[in-house]
Amino acid sequence: MTEEQVLAAITAKGNEIRDLKNEKNPEKNKDAITRLVEELLTLKEQYKAQTGKDFTPPKPAKAPAKKEVNKDTQPSKNKAKKEKKVALKKKKKEFSQSKQEDPLHDEKETLPSQGQLLLRQATFQTESHDQGQIVTPWDVEAENGVNYDKLIEQFGCSKLDSTVVDRFERLTGHKAHRYLRRGFFFAHRDLNELLDAYEKGESFYLYTGRGPSSGSLHMGHLIPFTFNAWLQKVFQVPLVIQLTDDEKFLFRDQTLEESRRMMLENVKDIITCGFDVNKTFIFANTDYIQHLYPQVLKVQKCVTYNQARGIFGFTGSDNIGKSAFPAVQAVPSFPETFPIPFGGRKNLRCLIPCAIDQDPYFRMTRDVASRLDYLKPATIYSKFFPALQGSSTKMSASKASTTIYLSDSAEEIATKIKRYAFSGGGETRADHEKYGANLKLDIPFQYLSFMLEDDDELASIANEYESGRMMSGQVKEKLIRVMTDFIQEMQERRRSITKEQIEEFMRVRPLRF
Amino acid sequence: MTEEQVLAAITAKGNEIRDLKNEKNPEKNKDAITRLVEELLTLKEQYKAQTGKDFTPPKPAKAPAKKEVNKDTQPSKNKAKKEKKVALKKKKKEFSQSKQEDPLHDEKETLPSQGQLLLRQATFQTESHDQGQIVTPWDVEAENGVNYDKLIEQFGCSKLDSTVVDRFERLTGHKAHRYLRRGFFFAHRDLNELLDAYEKGESFYLYTGRGPSSGSLHMGHLIPFTFNAWLQKVFQVPLVIQLTDDEKFLFRDQTLEESRRMMLENVKDIITCGFDVNKTFIFANTDYIQHLYPQVLKVQKCVTYNQARGIFGFTGSDNIGKSAFPAVQAVPSFPETFPIPFGGRKNLRCLIPCAIDQDPYFRMTRDVASRLDYLKPATIYSKFFPALQGSSTKMSASKASTTIYLSDSAEEIATKIKRYAFSGGGETRADHEKYGANLKLDIPFQYLSFMLEDDDELASIANEYESGRMMSGQVKEKLIRVMTDFIQEMQERRRSITKEQIEEFMRVRPLRF
Repeated sequence: MTEEQVLAAITAKGNEIRDLKNEKNPEKNKDAITRLVEELLTLKEQYKAQTGKDFTPPKPAKAPAKKEVNKDTQPSKNKAKKEKKVALKKKKKEFSQSKQEDPLHDEKETLPSQGQLLLRQATFQTESHDQGQIVTPWDVEAENGVNYDKLIEQFGCSKLDSTVVDRFERLTGHKAHRYLRRGFFFAHRDLNELLDAYEKGESFYLYTGRGPSSGSLHMGHLIPFTFNAWLQKVFQVPLVIQLTDDEKFLFRDQTLEESRRMMLENVKDIITCGFDVNKTFIFANTDYIQHLYPQVLKVQKCVTYNQARGIFGFTGSDNIGKSAFPAVQAVPSFPETFPIPFGGRKNLRCLIPCAIDQDPYFRMTRDVASRLDYLKPATIYSKFFPALQGSSTKMSASKASTTIYLSDSAEEIATKIKRYAFSGGGETRADHEKYGANLKLDIPFQYLSFMLEDDDELASIANEYESGRMMSGQVKEKLIRVMTDFIQEMQERRRSITKEQIEEFMRVRPLRF
Repeated sequence: MTEEQVLAAITAKGNEIRDLKNEKNPEKNKDAITRLVEELLTLKEQYKAQTGKDFTPPKPAKAPAKKEVNKDTQPSKNKAKKEKKVALKKKKKEFSQSKQEDPLHDEKETLPSQGQLLLRQATFQTESHDQGQIVTPWDVEAENGVNYDKLIEQFGCSKLDSTVVDRFERLTGHKAHRYLRRGFFFAHRDLNELLDAYEKGESFYLYTGRGPSSGSLHMGHLIPFTFNAWLQKVFQVPLVIQLTDDEKFLFRDQTLEESRRMMLENVKDIITCGFDVNKTFIFANTDYIQHLYPQVLKVQKCVTYNQARGIFGFTGSDNIGKSAFPAVQAVPSFPETFPIPFGGRKNLRCLIPCAIDQDPYFRMTRDVASRLDYLKPATIYSKFFPALQGSSTKMSASKASTTIYLSDSAEEIATKIKRYAFSGGGETRADHEKYGANLKLDIPFQYLSFMLEDDDELASIANEYESGRMMSGQVKEKLIRVMTDFIQEMQERRRSITKEQIEEFMRVRPLRF
């Protein structure tokens, strides 16, 4: 084959894979996709052998003109995108129809006029504002990356600007976490009210959670836990972690036994993130249900089916457990749910750090709170940890090739990043040197921005890479080193966690705070 | 006033009361109704003083011609009935619309051609077959008394005929309970299959329940318990009793604390019915939820919202706990829900004796059972214990004047029966002697048929009363004696029940059977 023929074959193979992945149920095409990916890699090796250079994917859009080029070279990708767009439009229409009946959806807060984020490059926003996107707790889909400003507007929460980040530093005496400095936690509800109360000497507690859907956590799952561990440390506050083994059973094709097994593995990963056992209570819903249930009933009584449908987009074909479930995720927001861990204290405010897709739960929770005469929880929302393939969706435990797991070996990490991590670098070496890399689309750079603590080092990489002086391969190598170090350290800590430690974290007991 | 004027005043007052009661929310008219009833009683006393005879309500319909007379003398009652009919039609239409989407509702069993019931008079059926009626677990409404044959047909269950009653006697060596002999338990699902298995040496367990909505049980509530106590005794089988304190919270304007308080009172009443503590486990849902929850999730996953709506008639304005609740009532039908009480035995069949309005729950349960690879429960259904005012609805704890409670004093019992029990006797003494009583509409006679053990004595009363030789007042006096004796004996037994006994019944422990 000539170079052109190999390029054409690579493009065709790539299209074939994308088409399969774009189908409604990509799981059933898994084997076919794996086979095609192998063939694609062989073609790419052939390309490298013939040309002496790495194959780089077509340069992604920076301006409309560039987009047109893409369109011409990837017709079937564009067809698939068009179909996806139609499907998204349909979904959005259904969703907005049910939303009209959502009497809870009246909470609109004024948005700060600007968010002066430390590193503009790490905001992962796309320029386009009219693209379709669906963000629910079970579904994150956006054609060209999630538009987070639009989400803030849609959900009616507030932008987390630099004044809040400054406040964190002033109140705790600690430098803000890199997730805050880099705008990865980007939105909130009532965070200032919570910090006001904290400033006056009131305490609060943290609540986060995990739905066990894989035996090992992946990098995206770790975000809320590493952030919660940091918050716990700098504020010295108690934390409750809900493991929604019931949710994963109701919403997925997963037995209760599978959910439990995965959950127990996940607990180890979570503890590895470094929580204070005296201040942290981890519970599985099926274990702690005795305490949850009366609270769940109270919340359920306050929410009509129409409201739940409006907020979460349920349909009549969903099982009856699904529409009841939001109450289960709501109740840890109230200190009344933890009479033993909190020693009966009802005046503790709750702060919920989680990804923005969980906002529907807490929008509902906050509405219900006032009706039950409970304190409204405050929230702080992160963006999504993008999949290796690109930021049009979040990293997903059900798609192994999009994902780097805590359990991955150094070799697996290197292979996945080299093979699958979407590059924002130039199509050819010449192009790259001329135009530089698109950091907003470059997954290796984005991952580095989550993981590299040193702001200067990250800024320098950004600068070098964006200007075209640093190559994609070098950025990938840097990420492989950073990620391998992190994961290997986590794996080592994980191995030292004992059954007794896990039992202690999960024991219903008074926390010390 | 002349005699005619007093009669007219009585009729007008009666109509006024009925109209108020027929309004959508009779609770809000409670005070007005009480006042009007007092005025009515005064008028009746005046009538007696003037004429020397008791006022008797207009003779109810035996044939269409008679019905016409009623129509003329009670215009506003008929107006109210007409409005009720329209409302019923609307309800039925909504219900049948949602039913069309009910894929579970495909279980139809062949009906035995005849039910040779021992005492025809005690069947409480009306002649009319095209009347409107609504029977759901929360709502029993029928213009002229419930048409039970129609219910059997609608629900698709089987008629309990005399061959089954004979089988009970043969298998247990005990005379059938009067509820069976008199056709009060009148329908079933798979009862013969259960008895077949029992005949082959397999055991079964009983499951019944109670939703605490009043501090004291009333006579209607006692039916399933006295029948279950008898079944337990003659078959020597274990029994589980579910107290749905969660349901009453979700479906009524009742706090969890109120539900719990009433529940603890109800447990005493239930134990008074005479259960074997070694074979009986009584549990409140909020107490036993730890064991119920995994089972509840399994059932919830098998039922879609559309199915639940089709079976139970939920609307979008109902709270999200309501549509999830049927799973909670379903799971005690499976021995898997009682690993400790049944020592892990999974081959126990379940028999559920309850009122027919609970059938929707068990229709759903039986469908789900096969999908979960569980045994289908068998059921045996009773008719409703009619309200004092007549058999168009069941006795209801929320309407004190329709109801005789276990806690009522001898005086209260006498007063309620004399004042409120609907009489099927003749309008005047002359009429009564000429036409006799309509036993199907006569509440005192119906109550006697539940309570009098002696078949001959009941048959003799039926004969004398129907022929007009025995007066309404005499039947009421007989009922007052029988009911007072029963309730006073129950009250005495109740007083001797200790806290320790209650705790033992409610302790999660292996049953002995």
